[in-house]
Amino acid sequence: VSLGRKRWAIADGYVPAAGPLAGDDRLRSHEAASILNTNDCDAHLVLTVYFHDREPAGPYRITVPARRTHHIRFDELREPEPIPRETEYACVLQSDVPVLVQQTRLDSRLGAIALLSTIAFPAD
Amino acid sequence: VSLGRKRWAIADGYVPAAGPLAGDDRLRSHEAASILNTNDCDAHLVLTVYFHDREPAGPYRITVPARRTHHIRFDELREPEPIPRETEYACVLQSDVPVLVQQTRLDSRLGAIALLSTIAFPAD
Amino acid sequence: VSLGRKRWAIADGYVPAAGPLAGDDRLRSHEAASILNTNDCDAHLVLTVYFHDREPAGPYRITVPARRTHHIRFDELREPEPIPRETEYACVLQSDVPVLVQQTRLDSRLGAIALLSTIAFPAD
Amino acid sequence: VSLGRKRWAIADGYVPAAGPLAGDDRLRSHEAASILNTNDCDAHLVLTVYFHDREPAGPYRITVPARRTHHIRFDELREPEPIPRETEYACVLQSDVPVLVQQTRLDSRLGAIALLSTIAFPAD
Repeated sequence: VSLGRKRWAIADGYVPAAGPLAGDDRLRSHEAASILNTNDCDAHLVLTVYFHDREPAGPYRITVPARRTHHIRFDELREPEPIPRETEYACVLQSDVPVLVQQTRLDSRLGAIALLSTIAFPAD
Repeated sequence: VSLGRKRWAIADGYVPAAGPLAGDDRLRSHEAASILNTNDCDAHLVLTVYFHDREPAGPYRITVPARRTHHIRFDELREPEPIPRETEYACVLQSDVPVLVQQTRLDSRLGAIALLSTIAFPAD
Repeated sequence: VSLGRKRWAIADGYVPAAGPLAGDDRLRSHEAASILNTNDCDAHLVLTVYFHDREPAGPYRITVPARRTHHIRFDELREPEPIPRETEYACVLQSDVPVLVQQTRLDSRLGAIALLSTIAFPAD
Repeated sequence: VSLGRKRWAIADGYVPAAGPLAGDDRLRSHEAASILNTNDCDAHLVLTVYFHDREPAGPYRITVPARRTHHIRFDELREPEPIPRETEYACVLQSDVPVLVQQTRLDSRLGAIALLSTIAFPAD
């Protein structure tokens, strides 16, 4: 059962400073784009990352297997280049099949957890 | 008065570790799908839960009575199988009548409260 | 310039316990439906509140003047009956002219602030 | 590649008191409208700010260059007038080309971080 859209966007991207819990993957400040692929085929996504003061970065290529969810952490993207912390960005995600995208940030800069989340904007 | 849609989805599901407040149902880390059924008949929902590295789980069957709201806690689902904590998941909710679905997470892993919430994605 | 919709809904309503900051209106745990009326005439809203285990409450009647925003606090509604704290609810808001509705919760049960917010679901 | 809408709105605007972290731009309580302009031309936005008890303020004029994101902080707007802290407001954003708008608040009144975020309401 196919579900979702092929193009999504988020406007408020920001990976806070790692903070005092940096040693724990789960609690270190991070931001994720969670992808749900309900199709019976893999979804191939291309991410373009926009910045305040330079040309966009990308393409970042992600594959989400059939009938799986993949929570992409922006702070762990490496190719073609890492996304720096403490830098405003935005992101467009283009998929070859319909998927669902949701953004979530965990901010633990001060040693406690703050969270935000929103379904991304369906842009096609 | 009927309101909403019959198919909804959320992409960023995660039930954090129970945390130091685990003894209090209201404050223990949890995640909920809140359902509003404004119809004059019961709503019968089937939930399918997707994971990162295995085939989907389900069907989870939920009934929301006519003119009622029901805040389903993912950490309390038991049949056909519990949803483990500290595991990325996603969820598709199919109803036989239009309903509204909103996702909310309470994260109290570190002994303070963090919250996130979003209206789910209407997928039909 | 008119903007928005005439019917909105939220599914995850909850006013947490007042908490240790109860003496400060701004910091006491609360939940709000923020209404924006961009019209050149007043907006007259009727709220219906749904519960888990009883028939809906209402109508709650709210007027938002022309070109104004009004952040309605659910914990301050009195007529026809207060909405109890620590009780799951949901809400449908019907307006006679298009408006915008956004839900926000401030949870200070443990003496720190947690926030959630989402644009409500446009239901017409 | 153009993406988004020309008119957006948020209903729950609020810049909390600056708080004990006021000396740090990143941690001082603030609210932002993050704009993504994927077009190959600049986007010119006009913001109108609505209040509870007075006529709207504006126009606030913002330019977001081609292929850039700009996270507008409401607490830093100066022309035609500042937006006061601890005051309920709402905002309509009109652009000459399609853009994406997301609202985010950081509340550090009590010395810890709380976050909320939502994609704004697409109003055209």
